[in-house]
Amino acid sequence: MKNHLWDLAHIAHVELFTPKLEASTRFFVDVMGMYISAVKGDSVYLRAYDDYEHHTLKLTAHKHAGMKHFAWRAKSPEALQRRVAALQKSGYGMGWNDGDIGHGPAYEYHSPSGHLTEIYFETEKYKSGASDTSALKNTASKFPARGINVRRIDHLNLFAKDVRAFRDFQLENLGGILTETIVDNLEDLNPKAVWFMVNSKSYDLAVTEDYLGMNDRFHHVTYAVNSREEVLIAADICLENGIFIETGPHKHTIQQTFFLYVYEPGGNRIEIANTTARLIVDPDYETVVWTLEERKKGQAWGLATVPSFHTKGTPMPEELD
Amino acid sequence: MKNHLWDLAHIAHVELFTPKLEASTRFFVDVMGMYISAVKGDSVYLRAYDDYEHHTLKLTAHKHAGMKHFAWRAKSPEALQRRVAALQKSGYGMGWNDGDIGHGPAYEYHSPSGHLTEIYFETEKYKSGASDTSALKNTASKFPARGINVRRIDHLNLFAKDVRAFRDFQLENLGGILTETIVDNLEDLNPKAVWFMVNSKSYDLAVTEDYLGMNDRFHHVTYAVNSREEVLIAADICLENGIFIETGPHKHTIQQTFFLYVYEPGGNRIEIANTTARLIVDPDYETVVWTLEERKKGQAWGLATVPSFHTKGTPMPEELD
Amino acid sequence: MKNHLWDLAHIAHVELFTPKLEASTRFFVDVMGMYISAVKGDSVYLRAYDDYEHHTLKLTAHKHAGMKHFAWRAKSPEALQRRVAALQKSGYGMGWNDGDIGHGPAYEYHSPSGHLTEIYFETEKYKSGASDTSALKNTASKFPARGINVRRIDHLNLFAKDVRAFRDFQLENLGGILTETIVDNLEDLNPKAVWFMVNSKSYDLAVTEDYLGMNDRFHHVTYAVNSREEVLIAADICLENGIFIETGPHKHTIQQTFFLYVYEPGGNRIEIANTTARLIVDPDYETVVWTLEERKKGQAWGLATVPSFHTKGTPMPEELD
Amino acid sequence: MKNHLWDLAHIAHVELFTPKLEASTRFFVDVMGMYISAVKGDSVYLRAYDDYEHHTLKLTAHKHAGMKHFAWRAKSPEALQRRVAALQKSGYGMGWNDGDIGHGPAYEYHSPSGHLTEIYFETEKYKSGASDTSALKNTASKFPARGINVRRIDHLNLFAKDVRAFRDFQLENLGGILTETIVDNLEDLNPKAVWFMVNSKSYDLAVTEDYLGMNDRFHHVTYAVNSREEVLIAADICLENGIFIETGPHKHTIQQTFFLYVYEPGGNRIEIANTTARLIVDPDYETVVWTLEERKKGQAWGLATVPSFHTKGTPMPEELD
Repeated sequence: MKNHLWDLAHIAHVELFTPKLEASTRFFVDVMGMYISAVKGDSVYLRAYDDYEHHTLKLTAHKHAGMKHFAWRAKSPEALQRRVAALQKSGYGMGWNDGDIGHGPAYEYHSPSGHLTEIYFETEKYKSGASDTSALKNTASKFPARGINVRRIDHLNLFAKDVRAFRDFQLENLGGILTETIVDNLEDLNPKAVWFMVNSKSYDLAVTEDYLGMNDRFHHVTYAVNSREEVLIAADICLENGIFIETGPHKHTIQQTFFLYVYEPGGNRIEIANTTARLIVDPDYETVVWTLEERKKGQAWGLATVPSFHTKGTPMPEELD
Repeated sequence: MKNHLWDLAHIAHVELFTPKLEASTRFFVDVMGMYISAVKGDSVYLRAYDDYEHHTLKLTAHKHAGMKHFAWRAKSPEALQRRVAALQKSGYGMGWNDGDIGHGPAYEYHSPSGHLTEIYFETEKYKSGASDTSALKNTASKFPARGINVRRIDHLNLFAKDVRAFRDFQLENLGGILTETIVDNLEDLNPKAVWFMVNSKSYDLAVTEDYLGMNDRFHHVTYAVNSREEVLIAADICLENGIFIETGPHKHTIQQTFFLYVYEPGGNRIEIANTTARLIVDPDYETVVWTLEERKKGQAWGLATVPSFHTKGTPMPEELD
Repeated sequence: MKNHLWDLAHIAHVELFTPKLEASTRFFVDVMGMYISAVKGDSVYLRAYDDYEHHTLKLTAHKHAGMKHFAWRAKSPEALQRRVAALQKSGYGMGWNDGDIGHGPAYEYHSPSGHLTEIYFETEKYKSGASDTSALKNTASKFPARGINVRRIDHLNLFAKDVRAFRDFQLENLGGILTETIVDNLEDLNPKAVWFMVNSKSYDLAVTEDYLGMNDRFHHVTYAVNSREEVLIAADICLENGIFIETGPHKHTIQQTFFLYVYEPGGNRIEIANTTARLIVDPDYETVVWTLEERKKGQAWGLATVPSFHTKGTPMPEELD
Repeated sequence: MKNHLWDLAHIAHVELFTPKLEASTRFFVDVMGMYISAVKGDSVYLRAYDDYEHHTLKLTAHKHAGMKHFAWRAKSPEALQRRVAALQKSGYGMGWNDGDIGHGPAYEYHSPSGHLTEIYFETEKYKSGASDTSALKNTASKFPARGINVRRIDHLNLFAKDVRAFRDFQLENLGGILTETIVDNLEDLNPKAVWFMVNSKSYDLAVTEDYLGMNDRFHHVTYAVNSREEVLIAADICLENGIFIETGPHKHTIQQTFFLYVYEPGGNRIEIANTTARLIVDPDYETVVWTLEERKKGQAWGLATVPSFHTKGTPMPEELD
C-alpha cells in the first residue's frame, strides 16, 4: 500500500498552436460547438458549454501546429504550495508567471519530455450572461445546440521520448495514480504508454512513447460528450463538414473510452469521447498492465489501430527547421 | 474559500432489510443483472459487474423493508484514523466492529438522523474466476448480459428529520462538499435536502427531509448503467417483469441524473440512473441552492414529482409496532 | 382475411396556420433544425434534412393556429386515379387544384371531420445545392448540426367529432390498415382513437375524438429523429430555448413511439419522436384494440397522460368568432 | 416513371446449415436473445421477440455452414398467385411444397444464383403464452432481457456469380425497387452489388458479386435492435462470450446501416444492425448508384472494409468436396 498524493484537481487548459487560426477557431465554434471567451493578440480563448473556468482551450497563431503549454489546477492553495516545493526541488521547476486571462499566478515547469506546463489555483469561474445562461443552474452555460456540443475538456495525450522518466517525475512530484500502462513485456516492464488519474475520472493525462524519438510533441486533446450516441453523431457532423476522421468511432481497450479522432484544420488531433459510467473511486486501484503482445489484438472490438495514430504528432519533424 | 476534507473515497455498500429475501434476491440477480458474492445466515451479498469490492449490497431478511446500515470506504488508513478521531470527538461515534465478509474492521456511528453507518479502509478486491472474468482487464467482472446490467453502485438517499443537523455533522466530521441543496427560501436557508460529494462524482449521498418527521428511514439506493438508453431499456424490463415503476425515466433538475425509480419486491425503492458526462472536478465548487419555489417547476423537462416520492420511505410507520 | 388497398405512399405535407409567422419560422429553423425551401406571400415552406420532397411543412400567417390542409402522396398515377374515383363517388370529393410550389395537381376533399385534404402524385424531388449537399448520396440534404436536427416528417394527428365516421371513410376510400385503436369498451367497440398505416411505418395518420365535440381541429404533427437519445437532447434544447414542453420524453403504450410534445410559438403542438426499430410488415396485421379501461394505466412506463393532451387542439374555441 | 410491383410483404425466414447445431442454437438463444419455437428432426426453429411469425430462422444440422433456403411472404393470396405465375413463366419455378411448421404451402424456385427460395402467404401468427406474453399488446412476445435482445429479422445478403442476372430476375418476377447499387463504373454500369426494397424498409435483400465466382453462397442474415447503443452493447457481449467480431460497429455508407458482423459458432456470418429512422416511402425512389471508385473511401466514417467481408461466404470452397 502506497500513499498517493491528491493535490491536483484536474487538467485545466491547453494552449494549441495553429497555422490557421481562423479556420481552427471556426472548427471549434461551429463543429465542436464551443464558445469564445476572449480574443487577445494572436490568441483565441474557448470553452465548452459546461467547462466551469474561463477557458479550457487557447488557440495561438504559429507557423506550425503543436502545443505551447498545458495547465493543471491544484486542489487548494496549500496543495499548490506543496507541488511547487516539490517541483522546485526536482530541478524541473522554472518559476511563477503572472497568470493569464481567466486565472491567477501559475508556477511553470518543463516536464522531462520538454512540455511546458503550469499549475495554479486561483481561477475565474465562468459567469454566463443574458444570452448564454442555462435553464439549469447546475450547468455552466447554455447547451449550444450547434455542431457536436462538446460538454467539457476531458483529457490530454502527449508524446514523450522517455515515458519512464515522465511517469516517475509525474507520480513523484504531481501525484495521482497510474491507472493503466502499456509495457514492452512482463519481464522488462519498460513503459510505452501511461495514463494518470488525479481525481475519479480514470485519466486526465496520457503519455505515449514518441515513435520518432522526439520530445515536446502533442498527440491530442479530448472533449467529452454526454453519450456514445453523440460520438456517432459527431462522426456524421465531421463527415458532412469535410473534417478528416483518422479513426473511430470505436471503443478503446485501454480505459474503455468510446473515441473519435479527427484533425482540426490547423493539423492538431482532436478526440471526441464518452466514457460511459466508468469512474475509478478505489483509492488504491492497482495499475492495469498491458503488454505490447496484448495490444496486437487492436481496440476493444478488434479494430486495428491505424498506423498514423502511432506516428502522427504535432509538430511533425518536417515542419521544424 | 473554505478548506475541504477529502478523506472519504466513496460510498461502499448498503445493507437492506427485506421481508421477501428470496424474491428480492431474484430481483437483484435476474432483473438488475447483479451477481451473488456470498450467502451467510439470513443475508445475501451482491455486487454489480464492475463493482470492485466484494459486495455493494447486502440483503438481510427482516419483518419489514428498510436499511440496516451503510458504509463509507476511507481514502487511506490515515484518512480513516482522522475520521474516527473526529467521530469520537463528535459524540456520535460508537466503536469498532470486526468487519464483515469482504472488508476489514469498521468504525461505527449513528448519524444525527439515526442511521447506522460504518467507515473502513481494508477491503477485499473482487477476484473474478473462470466463469465471470471480463475480456477487458479493466473491468471487475464479465458483463452479465442479463436484465438491466447495472454497472456499479452510484449513490444513496436517506430520509432525515433534521436535515440541517445531518448536513453540519457530515461536512464537519466526514468532509466532502455540499454540491447542491434545497432550502425553504433564500431568507431562512433552512435545508430541505442536501447532496454530498466526496470524490468527483457529483454526489454519493443525498439526505431529504422526512415528510413524516421520522428518523432512520431509507429513501433509495442507486445503481448506474452506462447510458440513458439503458435506463429506457430498464423501464421496459421492469414493465415486462411486473416491477412497479414509481416514476421516470426522466431527468432530475438537481444533479441532472437521468432516473428510473422502481420498488424491489421487498418494498425498498431502487433507482437505475445515468449521469451522462457530468463530473465536478472544481475543488471549490460553490453549492447550487434551489428554493422550494423553484422546485415547483418539477423535474428538468417539467415532469411533476410524484407525491409518493416525498412520502414513501422504508420502513413505513404502519410496519413498525 | 380482408384485402387491403395500398394506394397511398405516405403523408406528404401539412399546412399550419400561425398567428406568429416569424417566431414560428425561427422555431422550425433554429430549434427543430429544418431548412426553408421557399417563401411565397404569407407562407414559408420548410423541410427536414432527409425529407425527399420540396417541403413537408407550410406555415401560413393567420389570426389563429390550426391546420389549413394536409396532403397524401399516392403510390402511382394509377393509384391516384383510383383514389380520386373513390372520393368522387363518396360524396366527399371537391375537385382538382393546380398544385403548389413543389408538387403537381392535387385532388381535394373534406374528410368527414371537415379537414381539407389533398392527394397527388407528381412531385418535385428536392435537389440539394453546393451548400447543403450531404456527404452521403442516400441522404436528401446535409445534416444541419443545428438544434434538434429532425430527419423527416413522421405522422399527423387530428381531432374529429366522429371518429367512427372518419375511420370508415378512410379505410374505404383511401385504404391502408387500422393498426391500433382505442374503443370505449369491448361490447360497444365505439372508436375513440384510430391509427392508420399506409406503408410499413406503423402509422402515418392518427385521429382522436375531439373532447369539445368540434371538427376540423389539429392535434399535432410529428418529425422523426434517429434515436431516443436525440429525443432526450431535444427536450434539453426546448428547455434551454424557452419552448413549452407539454409532456415527455416518454414511451407511448400505443404504437410504442418515444415522444416529446412541445408547443411552437404560434400555438400548435409539435411532436419530436423516435420509433426505434418498430415496423409493421405483416400485410394482414390484426388491429390492436385498447379499451378506455386499459388506457387508465397511462403511458408505457406509467406516466399519466396530461389533461391538456386530451383537450388542447388548434384552434381553441375562444379563438374562433 | 416505371410502374413497380408491390406483391412481396417482406423477407420471412432463412434456413441456415450448421455443422454445430447445439453451439449455434446456444448462440442464437443466449447471445442473440432469441426464442426457440420448435425442434423437429435435425432442425431448430427460432424467432426474435418481436417477429410476428412462428419463426424467422431455422437451423439445420449439416456437414458445412451455408443457407438451405430462404422465404418471402407475399402481400396477399392474389399477390402470391401473380408471383407464382411469373415464376412459372420465367423458367426458374420449381413447384409447390406442403409448407413447414409455421406456414402453409409455398412455391419454390431457384434464383439465377442457384439459391433455393420459396414464397407463401398462409402463415401462423405467433401466439405468446403465460411465460412470454409482453406487457405491451403490440409486441409479439416478451422482451427477453437476455444477451443482445434482437427484435426482428431485418434482411438477407447473398453472394451471386452473376449479379446482373439476379437483379433483372428479381425486379421482373418478384418486384420491389432497386434502392442502391454498386456498379463497376458509370460507363459500363455493370452491377457488383444490389439492394432490393419490397416495403418501406430500404432493403430486405442484398446480393453481392461472389469473389470466387461461385453460386448459391450465403453472406449474412441480419437481425435488428432498437438503437445504435444496443449494437455497441452487442459488440461487448460478443467480446465477453468469445464470439468472433469480423468488423464494426460502424456505419455503412450504403443504406446507412449501423452494423456489427460476427460469426456464429457454425461459421455463418450474422449481422446485428440498427437503421435509425431511415425509411424510403418515396414510391418512385431513384436508385442510388455507387461506383467501385467511390467505394474505395471505405465505410461512412472512413473504416476500410475488411478483406474477409468480400471473400468469406458460406460454404467455403474447401468445405465442398
